[in-house]
Amino acid sequence: MLTMQDALLALQKYWTDRGCMVVQPFNTEVGAGTANPATTLRVLGPEPWHVGYVEPSVRPDDARYGENPNRLQMHTQFQVILKPDPGNPQELYLGSLEALGVDIHAHDIRFVEDNWAQPALGSWGLGWEVWLDGLEITQFTYFQQVGGMTLDPVSVEITYGVERILMALQGVSHFKDIAYAPGITYGEVFGQSEYEMSRYYLDDADIEANKLLFDTYAAEARRMIETRLPVPAYVYVLKCSHAFNVLDARGAISTTERAKAFAQMRTLTRQAAQLWTERREELGHQLGVAQPPAAAVLPAQLPVVDTAATLLFEIGVEEMPHAEVSRSAEAVREALVGKLAATRLGHGEVSVHATPRRIVLVVDQVQPREPDAERTVRGPRVTAAFDAEGVPTKAAQGFARGQGVDPAELLRIEVDGVQHVGVVKTDVGRGAVEVLSELLAQLVGELRAEKNMRWCDAGLSFTRPVRWLVALLGETVVPVAVSSLSSGRVTRVYRTAQAPEVQVPSADGYLEFLAGHGIVADAAQRREQIIAAATELAAGVDGTVDFAAESALLDEVTNLVERPTAILGGFAADYLELPTQILTTVMRKHQRYLPVRRDGQLLPHFVTVANGDCDQDLVRAGNESVLRARYEDAAFFWRADLKISPEQHKTGLDKLTFEERLGSVADRAHRIAGVAAELADVVGLDGGDRTTLDRAGALAKFDLATKMVIELSSLAGTMAREYALRAGETPEVAQALAEMEQPRSAGDALPASPAGALLALADRLDLLAGLFAVGANPTGSSDPFGLRRAALGVVGILRAFPALGAVTLSRGLAAAARQVTEQGVEVPDSALADALEFSVRRYEQSLLDAGHEHRLVQAVLPLAETPAAADTTLAELTRRAQDPEFVELAAALQRVRRIVPAGTHSEYDPGKLVEPAELALHEVLSKVSSQLDGATGGLAEFLSVAGELAAPVNAFFEAVLVMAEDEQLRRARLGLLATIDSLAEGVLDWRAL
Amino acid sequence: MLTMQDALLALQKYWTDRGCMVVQPFNTEVGAGTANPATTLRVLGPEPWHVGYVEPSVRPDDARYGENPNRLQMHTQFQVILKPDPGNPQELYLGSLEALGVDIHAHDIRFVEDNWAQPALGSWGLGWEVWLDGLEITQFTYFQQVGGMTLDPVSVEITYGVERILMALQGVSHFKDIAYAPGITYGEVFGQSEYEMSRYYLDDADIEANKLLFDTYAAEARRMIETRLPVPAYVYVLKCSHAFNVLDARGAISTTERAKAFAQMRTLTRQAAQLWTERREELGHQLGVAQPPAAAVLPAQLPVVDTAATLLFEIGVEEMPHAEVSRSAEAVREALVGKLAATRLGHGEVSVHATPRRIVLVVDQVQPREPDAERTVRGPRVTAAFDAEGVPTKAAQGFARGQGVDPAELLRIEVDGVQHVGVVKTDVGRGAVEVLSELLAQLVGELRAEKNMRWCDAGLSFTRPVRWLVALLGETVVPVAVSSLSSGRVTRVYRTAQAPEVQVPSADGYLEFLAGHGIVADAAQRREQIIAAATELAAGVDGTVDFAAESALLDEVTNLVERPTAILGGFAADYLELPTQILTTVMRKHQRYLPVRRDGQLLPHFVTVANGDCDQDLVRAGNESVLRARYEDAAFFWRADLKISPEQHKTGLDKLTFEERLGSVADRAHRIAGVAAELADVVGLDGGDRTTLDRAGALAKFDLATKMVIELSSLAGTMAREYALRAGETPEVAQALAEMEQPRSAGDALPASPAGALLALADRLDLLAGLFAVGANPTGSSDPFGLRRAALGVVGILRAFPALGAVTLSRGLAAAARQVTEQGVEVPDSALADALEFSVRRYEQSLLDAGHEHRLVQAVLPLAETPAAADTTLAELTRRAQDPEFVELAAALQRVRRIVPAGTHSEYDPGKLVEPAELALHEVLSKVSSQLDGATGGLAEFLSVAGELAAPVNAFFEAVLVMAEDEQLRRARLGLLATIDSLAEGVLDWRAL
Repeated sequence: MLTMQDALLALQKYWTDRGCMVVQPFNTEVGAGTANPATTLRVLGPEPWHVGYVEPSVRPDDARYGENPNRLQMHTQFQVILKPDPGNPQELYLGSLEALGVDIHAHDIRFVEDNWAQPALGSWGLGWEVWLDGLEITQFTYFQQVGGMTLDPVSVEITYGVERILMALQGVSHFKDIAYAPGITYGEVFGQSEYEMSRYYLDDADIEANKLLFDTYAAEARRMIETRLPVPAYVYVLKCSHAFNVLDARGAISTTERAKAFAQMRTLTRQAAQLWTERREELGHQLGVAQPPAAAVLPAQLPVVDTAATLLFEIGVEEMPHAEVSRSAEAVREALVGKLAATRLGHGEVSVHATPRRIVLVVDQVQPREPDAERTVRGPRVTAAFDAEGVPTKAAQGFARGQGVDPAELLRIEVDGVQHVGVVKTDVGRGAVEVLSELLAQLVGELRAEKNMRWCDAGLSFTRPVRWLVALLGETVVPVAVSSLSSGRVTRVYRTAQAPEVQVPSADGYLEFLAGHGIVADAAQRREQIIAAATELAAGVDGTVDFAAESALLDEVTNLVERPTAILGGFAADYLELPTQILTTVMRKHQRYLPVRRDGQLLPHFVTVANGDCDQDLVRAGNESVLRARYEDAAFFWRADLKISPEQHKTGLDKLTFEERLGSVADRAHRIAGVAAELADVVGLDGGDRTTLDRAGALAKFDLATKMVIELSSLAGTMAREYALRAGETPEVAQALAEMEQPRSAGDALPASPAGALLALADRLDLLAGLFAVGANPTGSSDPFGLRRAALGVVGILRAFPALGAVTLSRGLAAAARQVTEQGVEVPDSALADALEFSVRRYEQSLLDAGHEHRLVQAVLPLAETPAAADTTLAELTRRAQDPEFVELAAALQRVRRIVPAGTHSEYDPGKLVEPAELALHEVLSKVSSQLDGATGGLAEFLSVAGELAAPVNAFFEAVLVMAEDEQLRRARLGLLATIDSLAEGVLDWRAL
Repeated sequence: MLTMQDALLALQKYWTDRGCMVVQPFNTEVGAGTANPATTLRVLGPEPWHVGYVEPSVRPDDARYGENPNRLQMHTQFQVILKPDPGNPQELYLGSLEALGVDIHAHDIRFVEDNWAQPALGSWGLGWEVWLDGLEITQFTYFQQVGGMTLDPVSVEITYGVERILMALQGVSHFKDIAYAPGITYGEVFGQSEYEMSRYYLDDADIEANKLLFDTYAAEARRMIETRLPVPAYVYVLKCSHAFNVLDARGAISTTERAKAFAQMRTLTRQAAQLWTERREELGHQLGVAQPPAAAVLPAQLPVVDTAATLLFEIGVEEMPHAEVSRSAEAVREALVGKLAATRLGHGEVSVHATPRRIVLVVDQVQPREPDAERTVRGPRVTAAFDAEGVPTKAAQGFARGQGVDPAELLRIEVDGVQHVGVVKTDVGRGAVEVLSELLAQLVGELRAEKNMRWCDAGLSFTRPVRWLVALLGETVVPVAVSSLSSGRVTRVYRTAQAPEVQVPSADGYLEFLAGHGIVADAAQRREQIIAAATELAAGVDGTVDFAAESALLDEVTNLVERPTAILGGFAADYLELPTQILTTVMRKHQRYLPVRRDGQLLPHFVTVANGDCDQDLVRAGNESVLRARYEDAAFFWRADLKISPEQHKTGLDKLTFEERLGSVADRAHRIAGVAAELADVVGLDGGDRTTLDRAGALAKFDLATKMVIELSSLAGTMAREYALRAGETPEVAQALAEMEQPRSAGDALPASPAGALLALADRLDLLAGLFAVGANPTGSSDPFGLRRAALGVVGILRAFPALGAVTLSRGLAAAARQVTEQGVEVPDSALADALEFSVRRYEQSLLDAGHEHRLVQAVLPLAETPAAADTTLAELTRRAQDPEFVELAAALQRVRRIVPAGTHSEYDPGKLVEPAELALHEVLSKVSSQLDGATGGLAEFLSVAGELAAPVNAFFEAVLVMAEDEQLRRARLGLLATIDSLAEGVLDWRAL
């Protein structure tokens, strides 16, 4: 059996045999091999660098006292950097797996999109996680930017998760059981340290001491930057980072502290990176300068194809992200069609197919040549072309010379009714090969995806590296040269095939040719195959797969393989005791497995889709083991959490810092309960609903202290419900706790119960009032506490619950502010006003996003304090906006509004009125007023009653001069109009219409 | 060519193939592989542990900006721990060198005594540095104690200095040129980091920040000890240690701070070690418990030798320290002779020979058996043995039964004139093999050296492990079983021989047998061979070796080899520009080379003595390269230092902390100059001497800031002289600067010039006054500032310079105290008194150590303020002590002194005297008094004048009753005696005699 130490030595040997240097793990704690200066600094600048090293990676947050089978505070990475990209890093990587004894022909090894970004460090790259039978064993990334610097050349980073690989190879289910060396287990070597360091990181590290360390390290790093010493500067950044991680694991980092610390570390890392780059340049790039691969060149003589033929153009790519497979195929097809249209080359149908590794374009009946084409070239006007004697002027002579004809040969042509001289020229059609050679090169050069990267081929940019081109016109290779790539007739099939590269004889029948190598180029066909196979496999256990529900997952899986091999796997039925949501979340999100159900109930089975041929039993076993590990994790949390009552969990909230000034999560939960209770009073919630609210308020947020939610934060609320139910709370309380977290995002479900709705409101109002109070307002790019989402949530809930109409935004914020103030944090009025304005703007934006007309939205905004009422008005307004009666009324009311000076009292002495029109208006107004007395203020009601005002108002303006000289009369008329205005006010903002 | 990374992989492979685990370097800075918990913690307790790992070892103090060819702030160790000692670790080690491609048959590979101790950590072990052609490439240690805990089992630690080995193997002379990986040098990989981290450690690290780090780490370590978590506790000790090293490299650690920091780290390490041991026990020793090797057993039947034969007993040992080779041989010989004498076994001459690896005992003519011996056993008195009837009493019967004879067989024997019954018994002589088997086992069991260790064979203890025993009586093996060792006829010759183990046919001719295997067992013969060969080699370059001067070195070299192979090496003549003292110090102390001279002048040659056969050209080249590196180091310092004037160097003293409260070394140098100037005034130094003193005072201690002295502190003073001369100072100034550091130790040369003497005095007086002032008095075991040596120095100089007599101890200390006070540190009177007392005690002790009689020493101690005067008096006293006249005078003066009450005035009215004896005494006294008026106070002078007082004093006491009833008379008589007493006072303390 390959022991872990054998594996580490084998990897060192494998990579040194391939030109890598070995260096040592870094001698200060790092969270990953990437952090070692042998990666972070060396990937900068133009010097080549090939290195491999072991890196014990310390992640205090992953400390589990050595109890969790898969999670360690220190795990072992093997890190490889290839700079520049050697052009075949995936193939090299697969070779390294073979060196570890992995039978890559039997296993299902896949490259699944996984991009890497540390915005905190100005670093990102694109790549994959490598799956071995569903187990993530390696991170494989093309670094694009590090420390804020764009990399040229790009480096390939390969990071092996050594413990995981060894657990899989040795078939053990706990890291402690890995055979580390002959006769000695991993647990025997590292177990005690794992336990003790976990204790330190999770329980015993002194928080003040580590804060002091952080600050001291940061100061040293800054000093070293000033001293122009990037190496010690970066070493101190690493020390900072570790101190931060320790504090984080101790739960001692609030969101504001986190943001501040990240900003510090980001700045320092960028400065160190910049400085390193400068210093390397000053030192003359001792390791030389990496040269890009030579540019491809076309042959001096292009081949000639003299009959119509099929064009095959295949763009060979390293595994594209699933979403890019279809998107890119369609984009490339469109580009090809467009480019062909810009030529005179005749052709038949253009079709495209794609797998993760290839985009295949087939064009039928490409004509051998473009037809020739005539073209008229206009010269000077005839009047200017010949002198009085009809002799060509200098202008005409010049034109003729420029066109290569004798002035005598100039024709006369008419353009826009004016006579010019001119010539007719023939553009000789180019051969198909010539046309395509140029066009296809352009096509490749212009390839772009949603998110693009660079690799060794510096002239190209795409979602993943383009590694080969097949271009055949019939049986003839169309030479294409773009950057360093040349086309040919060689395609690549499975990397694990006997012959991974094969010659393509002809463009015709290429899909069949690929099928002969086990590759299904057509995505629809792959999708159907998966459905058919999964249906059959599920039926084998008397189950079904809900393909409609899994449509997105199905699309994804379809584009993760070149030929689907569906495999049915199972897991221990015991795990079905866990809430279904946990199980399916893990299946879908982490593993891309299709859940299998019977009568809607989850079965202990799943369907995974492997790529091409493999040893199905082996792959099944591997996938089952991965799922088991993940479920074991979840079950561990589940069981551990269930041992503790919700009340006890709740005491754990004390230890979770929410925000420096706003205290712990416990403080926040207390405020939420208080706000909810006050709002319940406002809306008069009573009876069972009130009991539910009070109890749920008392337990608010308790699940944030559970292991499950600490691990899988997306299950907050869901777990509160599950744990509460099992602790004997009523279903209503459990539901209210779950609803409290809703909506999680725009479009997410809203609370359904009044108690849930009030708690959810209280939660978000607390965020808004508290964080605006301490000045943690969102800025353009930064919204660390998710206040936009919170405001949208408040508005969304109020819109969904008209019954809570008494809770206006201001009232809600004021209630939240009172709770914050009670805990000793002052809430300035201006902060509350800002929070209100911020919330109204979110409401406005959501209305606009939903497609409502801008002026109508503006018209109802004055009602935004009660969004449900504003919604009703907006709906009525939208329905009536084109209605002539409404238009007339609105115009009349606007007219009224325009003439009434601000401050005019809405009262008048009807006895002063004299003109019939004004008396008539007074009469209608009196009736309308009395009818509206006690109305709800809704637009529909207003319109039904006040509609009849339009005519008398218009008649009034036609007949009456408002600004009468008699002051009493004038005052009465203005009073009349002001009364109308005040009647309409509050219904909506008529001026906006 | 083997690259460095190949070498690291080869070592990992070699040791894993031999059952070692590989672990990773530690992820916080460590100064050595030993500090990694995989060594420090794992060697504790009973669990077996075999491990090998690379350890990049950080030593800020060794930072040289990457400029020094051999010195790095981070060098690479490969560390191996074998626990328990496998019994053949040296052989395993040599195998690892072969795995690195070292031809161990061609090179001179030696194990040279080098013991390891970190008293600061309660750790020590015995072992060697391994030399490859004179280059130290490995530390090889049997750990005996770690963290204050005695180790059982003992661990073997092998620490390879990887850069050094690679430089030797690759034949490069700067670490930067090591081929680290194919096509890439060490300098290219690590050069920039080496430079930048050097900058940080030497110049740019923030001192306050690092002090804060130290304290914070120490506090965390303490907390973890309290929490019973040894692993994080120890990690924080390592962090402490690194912070300390950074501060030290920055020159920011004073002696008191050092002592305090060490005490902290020692305590924490011990506590962590203790705690780890307890925790491992609580965890049930997961790795098992190492079992000691089985005890050897004797055969059931011992062989019989029936003629007189030669005994050969060889104790095979791993390389003994050179001093132990001869010492142990003699001790073993004595033990054998003593033990044989305690038997009745007849034998001839006993001879012993020893090499580093064996002690060979040969005993001629060992008789085959002990002769039988008769022995009389006494019983009861005859009177008690028989009753009246002559029948044996119960007593007699009991005695007979006890002796196994019939009562009738009892004899009568006389003891001290009393008749007893008795029996005569015969002790049958044992065979030689039986006698020797037991005796030799005892001999081995009782082996002890000056400093002893344990190894896997838990029953034994010696200077180094005993690995084999040869015991032959003629051709017969004498079975010896001691602990796990059994004797046999197999000896071990060179480890690199074709057959390293050979059968010894017979005890006879064993030395010739060994000679046949190239081993010269006789040390005298080896010494002669070295002298002969070195003489011839030196003659070859027209030079000589001063064997008389090199006698100690010669003894050492003789016992470093089993057969000397003298090799002449050379070095570049350029290095002769360096002061000879530097060159010879390096040769002797570091390399054990014999310097070669012509007419007293050093030649660029040396003689090294290799062990046995080797490729002489290869070994010469290796040794030359080592010496070149060392000289290059020295020359680098020399040249660098010469670029800077003494004044400029002196400014560097500001940065060197002397003591927290007493300021920098610059402050101290300033005080020294001040004290020396004041003392010069006291003694009236003027003219050229005064000029010299003032100038030397201005430059005092400047060389402490030179690179050479920082590197080789024993050259302080020497380098001051050399650099001063070359900077154009006068020879007198240069000499005074050199003398200022004298005496370095007891027995060292004293200053020769008055200026030198005054500076040396000032130096030491400053130490005493300053450190007593701040309470840094030496304690019983601790004298970190060397105050004992300082006081002895003061006394020694004053004794050697009677001309400086005006400088009393008090006056000197007071002058020093004034300087200290001027710099703002108060010097309490009590501190000065303590310093004086401390100095006087050192003087007293040195007199006693020199063999002076206690009472004479006490007698002159009152003169110790001026030790030269005290010396003179003591010499006179010693000469005269037995002289009857002196004895009489002394007795008389003591008699006087005893009768005179304290406080009696030394004056009297002669007119009151009445008796002739008192009048006669008055007369003699008057004469003596007038003669002594203006005397120097020396004892000789006093005796020559006052000698005649003895008789009248004695006559006075015989005739006169001092205590007359007449008060006036009594007062006159007492006054007379008091006058005599005061005349004698100050000459010495007469009461002590």
